[in-house]
Amino acid sequence: MSQSVQVESSLPVYRQIDGHHAPVPFLLTRDMFGGIPVELGGAEITALVDRPVAEPHVHDVPEIYLLIAPTPGAAVIDVEVDGETVRLTAPAALYVPAGCRHHFITRSAVPGSYCYGLFLHSPLERSEDHEPC
Amino acid sequence: MSQSVQVESSLPVYRQIDGHHAPVPFLLTRDMFGGIPVELGGAEITALVDRPVAEPHVHDVPEIYLLIAPTPGAAVIDVEVDGETVRLTAPAALYVPAGCRHHFITRSAVPGSYCYGLFLHSPLERSEDHEPC
Repeated sequence: MSQSVQVESSLPVYRQIDGHHAPVPFLLTRDMFGGIPVELGGAEITALVDRPVAEPHVHDVPEIYLLIAPTPGAAVIDVEVDGETVRLTAPAALYVPAGCRHHFITRSAVPGSYCYGLFLHSPLERSEDHEPC
Repeated sequence: MSQSVQVESSLPVYRQIDGHHAPVPFLLTRDMFGGIPVELGGAEITALVDRPVAEPHVHDVPEIYLLIAPTPGAAVIDVEVDGETVRLTAPAALYVPAGCRHHFITRSAVPGSYCYGLFLHSPLERSEDHEPC
């Protein structure tokens, strides 16, 4: 097997993130696998109905929210972006440009539903389509 | 709200991928959000125990396997990379360099367990650590 195949099995790792009420569990961080251009934070959300995990906050990189559930419609979150609310019904993805103030609130979730944030640290391909707030 | 906030709600999208027995469901593809440097494919795996979804195959970009379950240990997969097998127990992540022949087989999974492949299309930060097979 290639020496380059690497496993991360002591997951999640917890990171303090601005605006969040508690350390955030991450499955991917930039220091893994010799340096990757993404991070992935989030968790199962069954216990989070109507409980935001963070105050509205900003990042200096784009974030894609990913909402996953065992069956279509089995999880719903409200994502607040710059003071307006976008409702996501699983499965769904929402792109938050760098600098936009945001957070999410779970509205319903069956067991096995997850909300993740995928942070993109690499340059985007068509930057003109990604205006910051 | 910023014009740049974009939602993908008609998910998953299905793509034919080399080596796979059926079109693969994707939550993220490169054409979304004006062009992103990653793709994310995968699904709930409860119905896939001992049923590989693909023959061993290669990609021209690195892929990170992500194994997620409601509780630690509640899903197990075997990832075969260049003919050797690595066992992953949720939550876990495994890095497959570009060019390495690979596939996975689910060994156990409670409802709400998922296996995703995150494809990295952007240049890696420390390329010397990512030798191809």
